[in-house]
Amino acid sequence: MENLAYYNGRIAPIDEMMVPMNDRVCFFGDGVYEATMVSNHKIFALEDHVERFYNSAGLVKIEIPYTKQELKDILNDLVQKVDSPDQMLYWQVTRGTAPRNHIYPVGVKANLWVTIKPMKVKDQSRQLTMTDMEDTRFLHCNIKTLNLMINCMAATHAEEQGCDECVFHRGDVVTECAHSNISIIKDGVFITHPTDHYILPGITRKHMIEICKEHNIPVDETPFTMQQLMEADEVLVSSSTQLCRRACSLNGRSIGGRNPEMVKLIQDAYMEKYNNETR
Amino acid sequence: MENLAYYNGRIAPIDEMMVPMNDRVCFFGDGVYEATMVSNHKIFALEDHVERFYNSAGLVKIEIPYTKQELKDILNDLVQKVDSPDQMLYWQVTRGTAPRNHIYPVGVKANLWVTIKPMKVKDQSRQLTMTDMEDTRFLHCNIKTLNLMINCMAATHAEEQGCDECVFHRGDVVTECAHSNISIIKDGVFITHPTDHYILPGITRKHMIEICKEHNIPVDETPFTMQQLMEADEVLVSSSTQLCRRACSLNGRSIGGRNPEMVKLIQDAYMEKYNNETR
Repeated sequence: MENLAYYNGRIAPIDEMMVPMNDRVCFFGDGVYEATMVSNHKIFALEDHVERFYNSAGLVKIEIPYTKQELKDILNDLVQKVDSPDQMLYWQVTRGTAPRNHIYPVGVKANLWVTIKPMKVKDQSRQLTMTDMEDTRFLHCNIKTLNLMINCMAATHAEEQGCDECVFHRGDVVTECAHSNISIIKDGVFITHPTDHYILPGITRKHMIEICKEHNIPVDETPFTMQQLMEADEVLVSSSTQLCRRACSLNGRSIGGRNPEMVKLIQDAYMEKYNNETR
Repeated sequence: MENLAYYNGRIAPIDEMMVPMNDRVCFFGDGVYEATMVSNHKIFALEDHVERFYNSAGLVKIEIPYTKQELKDILNDLVQKVDSPDQMLYWQVTRGTAPRNHIYPVGVKANLWVTIKPMKVKDQSRQLTMTDMEDTRFLHCNIKTLNLMINCMAATHAEEQGCDECVFHRGDVVTECAHSNISIIKDGVFITHPTDHYILPGITRKHMIEICKEHNIPVDETPFTMQQLMEADEVLVSSSTQLCRRACSLNGRSIGGRNPEMVKLIQDAYMEKYNNETR
């Protein structure tokens, strides 16, 4: 197939798949999701994504009706069905199908959704331009929920400004981006927001921290400010579908670019890990 | 029909209606909604709800593909199709159907959804029990969006505590409830949170304020605290589907009950308005 949608075992091309109106996602956005890249029909960092998926679901009390191994088997099977060896794999679980009611339904099975479409890993050398926006989201940003209207608003704001990403900040403190984490390098130290309720615990972020530690780069998980971002030696934007890229400007002002060796070290180590796992 | 779902012109029983997976509601909860009661096939406060609907949509830049009159015509037509004269009417608009992308799609028409099911106006004399929860929602609670996971969490928390509603508060300041506004009466004054970004500008709330003004009851739109709620003469919980009811307890402690005459005055005036409009 060229691309694939899966809904509780049914399979169809994405733009032909229909779902019940009473799926709670339709009225409440009531679900959690994951996304990662696939190369050579092999799913990158599947273990990490499945762990986070169950964690997100647990935090909002959605019971996933599969064991972790069953879910991995379903996903590994589905990525074989799409022709392109390079894919973006996306999946979500919604609380189930029931008449609209804020109160969680009892005895209703959660719904598993998957989409797979062809996508190549983005060119890691391309640098990103950014704008910014006050972070007015809820205080559960650690949970990868489908309540994403503000993230969409921020991504669209970036697009309208001709930028690639939008940096969220609460007052002066940088949290993350519309659909990425953000980290800085200053005086040889990798600085990134701690994994509290203000940011998603990014898997690329986690791997970058591991790479830093392997290469004796000090890691400081401390909130940093917009001022620190402007004055950073480098700014790195990371996500599971975009991997790890340099940001080169904020609202038209040049940022970073003062420690390209360390950026290259982290990016190369990351791509090596990616290529090894999806060989 | 016993009940009815409508999706861009298609009509089916609610539990049989299917919608495209690529409707942006499925991935982002990207839409806004309204709900109101219907008696004798007449929609209560339709004008107010349509105004707020267009306002919500405008705030998130969703263009509703109908004039207000066209929308009212669609809704007035649909409520005739359901057998029961007493109904709950719900409708929402989602940003449209397009491949998943945070950035708003260009040139894509928004989707109109409607559901109608039999429902009678709730007994206004029944008193509500409440529990409470810190309000950790986003700072756009004035927009009636479909990003409702935290509201669902709060409603379920109330249910688990054997309560009817959950009071949200930011620190000590009361905002609203899981799916209602909340107001208090103290020393003959009607006190309710101002319509800022922390609460939905409730239509029942608005009508209650009008009733108070018509009856020379002073209205104070000022935030009040949990302590003030505990010490209030009366506590009123209002919404478009539940109308206006007294709350009698918070976490098992008795509240209000010290100005039943004023509660009765407001409730009676409200029901008179309701009955006049839906006669």
